[in-house]
Amino acid sequence: METVVYFQGVIMINYKIINKDNKARLGQLETKHGIVDTPAFMAVGTQGTVKAMMPESVEQTGTQVVLGNTYHLMLRPTAERIADLGGLHKFMNWHKTILTDSGGFQVMSLAKLRKITEKGVTFSSHIDGSKHLLSPERSMEIQHLLGSDITMCFDECTKFPATFDEAKASMELSLRWALRSKEAFIQRSGYGLFGIIQGSIYPQLREYSANEMVKIGFDGYAVGGLAVGEGQEMMLKTLDFCVDFLPENKPRYLMGVGTPDDLIKSVYRGIDMFDCVMPTRAGRNGLAFTRSGKINIRNAKNATDEAPLDEHCHCPACKNYSRAFLHHAVKAKEIIASMLMTWHNIQFYQDLMNKLRELIAKNEMTDDCEKIFEKLRG
Amino acid sequence: METVVYFQGVIMINYKIINKDNKARLGQLETKHGIVDTPAFMAVGTQGTVKAMMPESVEQTGTQVVLGNTYHLMLRPTAERIADLGGLHKFMNWHKTILTDSGGFQVMSLAKLRKITEKGVTFSSHIDGSKHLLSPERSMEIQHLLGSDITMCFDECTKFPATFDEAKASMELSLRWALRSKEAFIQRSGYGLFGIIQGSIYPQLREYSANEMVKIGFDGYAVGGLAVGEGQEMMLKTLDFCVDFLPENKPRYLMGVGTPDDLIKSVYRGIDMFDCVMPTRAGRNGLAFTRSGKINIRNAKNATDEAPLDEHCHCPACKNYSRAFLHHAVKAKEIIASMLMTWHNIQFYQDLMNKLRELIAKNEMTDDCEKIFEKLRG
Repeated sequence: METVVYFQGVIMINYKIINKDNKARLGQLETKHGIVDTPAFMAVGTQGTVKAMMPESVEQTGTQVVLGNTYHLMLRPTAERIADLGGLHKFMNWHKTILTDSGGFQVMSLAKLRKITEKGVTFSSHIDGSKHLLSPERSMEIQHLLGSDITMCFDECTKFPATFDEAKASMELSLRWALRSKEAFIQRSGYGLFGIIQGSIYPQLREYSANEMVKIGFDGYAVGGLAVGEGQEMMLKTLDFCVDFLPENKPRYLMGVGTPDDLIKSVYRGIDMFDCVMPTRAGRNGLAFTRSGKINIRNAKNATDEAPLDEHCHCPACKNYSRAFLHHAVKAKEIIASMLMTWHNIQFYQDLMNKLRELIAKNEMTDDCEKIFEKLRG
Repeated sequence: METVVYFQGVIMINYKIINKDNKARLGQLETKHGIVDTPAFMAVGTQGTVKAMMPESVEQTGTQVVLGNTYHLMLRPTAERIADLGGLHKFMNWHKTILTDSGGFQVMSLAKLRKITEKGVTFSSHIDGSKHLLSPERSMEIQHLLGSDITMCFDECTKFPATFDEAKASMELSLRWALRSKEAFIQRSGYGLFGIIQGSIYPQLREYSANEMVKIGFDGYAVGGLAVGEGQEMMLKTLDFCVDFLPENKPRYLMGVGTPDDLIKSVYRGIDMFDCVMPTRAGRNGLAFTRSGKINIRNAKNATDEAPLDEHCHCPACKNYSRAFLHHAVKAKEIIASMLMTWHNIQFYQDLMNKLRELIAKNEMTDDCEKIFEKLRG
């Protein structure tokens, strides 16, 4: 494997571990825009809005980080325009921490006419066909223009399945891009840069990726290339060895994950941060996560049900509405259905994370999901 | 014209006039669910929700009445189901006054295979083709099941244009239906029944309709059959004589109206209550009503505009967001665009009504719209 010249980073955002319970960690991250209690679930706000929610409501759920998508925002309204308008926090009226992805994942899944070279990815916009380049340097520039508290390195999300050689080549490209990301990142207090570990399901590659990333030095480390079709079992197996390669004193972020079950089992394995469109997307589709399992509110049996979605939940959807109303609103395609179901799902995710933090604090963390759901109902 | 037997109604909701300024009136209506300051704009909540708004937000704008649509609710989720679930207030989480229309207007504009007889209207649902009857008795029953504070008589909204004979026949049918509505309405304290004056643009018919309606005796009187294509000039001309036929001591409701301009000019002519989909529908379409006129937020010039929609407005859309953000959100088809633009428009309508009430209290009411907009900016 090739050699690159590394340099150590200055710590730009603080992370402290408050308690450890086996591998699970209770921590606190401090960015320019506030405290993030970990394990944390970050709400996805792709285009400058957590879909169907007011930022005030997002905050009310206990959410401390919103994720913005570099790919979407660079195309519309453009990072330069957001910078001119005072940055993404002001633009979208979210004044707590913002994490932005690097665009690397979405350029591969959404853009047209993609071409990857050592330099980066050239592509055509899915909106208007205009030509663009995303490279480590451009990704850092965009995330800087947005004013992101936590910037992600530009990487290639290795496809699944990938042969060892494919995974190795992809991981090495991500390493070279990580170094360029680090060099291009403008360091300033309160703002951090996270590296992304690749290597697919191969322990040897994950270990190499992690070691080299740590040598470059980042404020946190993401595990990338998971939740891309490998299934929960293989994802957890990969986490089992992958997390051990990461430094204790830095936050660990599992990108794009997941179900409540995934979150519990990954926290148990030492992951500190998550993001996923699941609660918001499911909400817009009439699916609710509750302390008694998933509910498809479209099911006919909900049409006459006076009960709330989740009797233990204190969100407005559960406090003020019956399942019958939500069923009606979804069937009638009313916007309030998306508003309420999304709010509930984000609330549920945050209540779950809060419970996990509580359990870690008491050294009672478990990966027995049913036990945790019981505690949530208690 | 035929003779029918009338009986006097008991006053079931109180209405008091606080001040008169020429024809304009400052008043207060009291229903089971609270005070309604008039002149009042009622937000339309067709299917049990003011589209794209939480009821708490609707209330925050100063809205005191939400309108529910009998036609939509009888079909989905059905009035019987709403009654089983505790009534429309509880179902939709709106605990102030609800006014329901009779279904008469929408059955003619939305239903399929309509057939009008003396008994009522048989029709097929636009949702699933199921067969239904709307009659004065059934309309009263539905509105009772919903728990509506203000019930509207079942009437036929006379088409426009209509010959004198067509308008006369239609108005007489509405009179007979009004009597049957009154007989079927279950009177109880805090709940009222409003009659609807028809007669198209013919003074003689409007006068007859009004006189006969007053003989039946209602808690308020609506002017129906306007804003159906006759244009503002003819609408105001009709109001000019029509309002004089109505009793002083009862609220007057101009159905389905209108633009800010329409509201000002109608209040000036003695109207006390309004409802219209305009602020909500326009909001979802990216159109804002402001103190400086209408804004189409899609226009390219808004893309870089740091200014709020309306610098004098205190709604969340104006306090927390630039036109540039709203432009972006509309273009990106984000739900928050509908949420914010609707909120702003309802807020603007309520701010306007509040200003009109203030002007009437000071005997300064005018139908010079530009002067009133100036005062709103002041």
